[in-house]
Amino acid sequence: MVSNPVLVEVTRGNVVESRHRGAMSIFDGDGRQVFSIGDVERLTFPRSAIKSIQALPLVESGAADAFGFEDADLAMACASHSGEPEHVARAELMLKKAGLDASALECGSHWPTQQPVLIDLAKSGKEPTALHNNCSGKHAGFLATCMHCGMQTKGYVAQGSEIQDTVRDVMQSVTGARHSLDHCGTDGCSIPTYAIPLSDLANGFAKMATGNGLEPLRANAAKRLINACMAEPYYVAGSRRACTELMQLAPGRIFVKTGAEAVFCGAVPELGIGFALKCDDGGTRASEAMVISLLSRLFAKDQELSAKLAAMANKELKNWNGISLGYVRPTELISAANII
Amino acid sequence: MVSNPVLVEVTRGNVVESRHRGAMSIFDGDGRQVFSIGDVERLTFPRSAIKSIQALPLVESGAADAFGFEDADLAMACASHSGEPEHVARAELMLKKAGLDASALECGSHWPTQQPVLIDLAKSGKEPTALHNNCSGKHAGFLATCMHCGMQTKGYVAQGSEIQDTVRDVMQSVTGARHSLDHCGTDGCSIPTYAIPLSDLANGFAKMATGNGLEPLRANAAKRLINACMAEPYYVAGSRRACTELMQLAPGRIFVKTGAEAVFCGAVPELGIGFALKCDDGGTRASEAMVISLLSRLFAKDQELSAKLAAMANKELKNWNGISLGYVRPTELISAANII
Repeated sequence: MVSNPVLVEVTRGNVVESRHRGAMSIFDGDGRQVFSIGDVERLTFPRSAIKSIQALPLVESGAADAFGFEDADLAMACASHSGEPEHVARAELMLKKAGLDASALECGSHWPTQQPVLIDLAKSGKEPTALHNNCSGKHAGFLATCMHCGMQTKGYVAQGSEIQDTVRDVMQSVTGARHSLDHCGTDGCSIPTYAIPLSDLANGFAKMATGNGLEPLRANAAKRLINACMAEPYYVAGSRRACTELMQLAPGRIFVKTGAEAVFCGAVPELGIGFALKCDDGGTRASEAMVISLLSRLFAKDQELSAKLAAMANKELKNWNGISLGYVRPTELISAANII
Repeated sequence: MVSNPVLVEVTRGNVVESRHRGAMSIFDGDGRQVFSIGDVERLTFPRSAIKSIQALPLVESGAADAFGFEDADLAMACASHSGEPEHVARAELMLKKAGLDASALECGSHWPTQQPVLIDLAKSGKEPTALHNNCSGKHAGFLATCMHCGMQTKGYVAQGSEIQDTVRDVMQSVTGARHSLDHCGTDGCSIPTYAIPLSDLANGFAKMATGNGLEPLRANAAKRLINACMAEPYYVAGSRRACTELMQLAPGRIFVKTGAEAVFCGAVPELGIGFALKCDDGGTRASEAMVISLLSRLFAKDQELSAKLAAMANKELKNWNGISLGYVRPTELISAANII
């Protein structure tokens, strides 16, 4: 197997302590790969990074309009949220709008993964519910679609259910990648996830951003979902989260969504490009450095924004006493890349 | 730079989702490397994996005896503990024995990193103190040494302090590696940490386990510390932690200690060998699979123990609903290696 290159280094003092390898692909709206690093044909589980594509049936079916879903609801349908009180309340509201409650969720429950959120919840004496699950908004979106289209809600997470088959067909159509049962795994929230090439993911997000190659109904739904995420980035992730902070940094100009095991998909609408990347080892600190550095290069012509992103991509590490230890930093393969 | 090989794969369904590379070295007591994978000369910060070597002055100076330190205290001096109530109480007791209290600690405080421990602490309404710091036992050991030897306690964490210079000299002597200021970084708990080759770390732990090449005072101190860790493994890490579980699995036969950024050092006293390994990307799930699989091969002649370890090394991943997702598993480079 080809070795992907080292794209992120973690330093301590003058020494590189750890190294992260990865691959990335960028496509334009004409279906051309305009930049790549590493093996972009390797099968990759996109995990949560494709929630905006998985939410297309919610909009296309008319369910979102029928239930009065606002931008924040649509952002939640595309989210891996932190389980902060606003996220929990919003997931509950989405279900209520669709005539359901939390008992319909089949995603399971887990404690928030962001430490401050977890501590606040534990201090409150409450336990996490399915509404706290980072995927509860996506599941509320699936359930709303089921309710509107007369699909069965019970068992909606299972491979082979009507809604999951619908979602898979949409994924196949948008990415152009065959979604084979041989490459199907189960995601953290129990729905099927299919491993496909990074290049097809980048191609899919270029189509989502430009509408090129999509029928008008789908092109409009894609634009509406991406715009909703960019308008309500707090509902896509949460406080101090990379997706939220990046979309807040340049409102309407950056769309990004992470997935577990260090995937990022996204788009820069004004450039008409989509991208997908993965850090080989699943390390989120590295995929974040990768996507931020990539965005810095994509906005090379906007020097102020590009410089802000470049600074963010070099993340200083401090210890419990606030002493500077080193950096998580992208290597020159990204930080000095001439992409556009 | 040489690419280290993939030593651990993370699977989902039938697909490899993530990959971890790394290197490992095994030495015998005669200073010979008997097995290696990858670049074992690369500079590596051992971080907490060498706490037993850093604790040698505590025993050699007579401080441990003067203050009546038991095995549990010595294990704590070598520990990265989880901050469970027993660990916190034991760190406080060590300081009390040395005539000090928690105000002498300069390690900083942090919330426990093990989620169940963190949740219990947050639910109790308490905040973490320096006693909860995973390194508080090591720091109590440093402070006890300072008190016994008349070294200054204030500023004991700083590079250039008497105790840190002493610890560095011991590390140089045991590992044979030059500890250069150029390769010195600051650890999470604020003490200096020096990057040295993995091979020298393995050589050092072979000496610790066998006493070969060490003067009698040091050989005895090394044996006492390693035996204390193997006798009180709960105090070396904590509930559901790899170091604790491995040393509990085969009492007196396995010594292991992890360090941040995916390092493991250890020894198998009955085989007279020491080892050191690191996963390139700092992923703990991978370094755990690496060390467990390595131990399975080292105990190949004890079929029952070897099989238990091989099973542990293949860790099943389940989601919030308890559905099996895949495995964290060592590759054949370790799991099929003929080491002994």
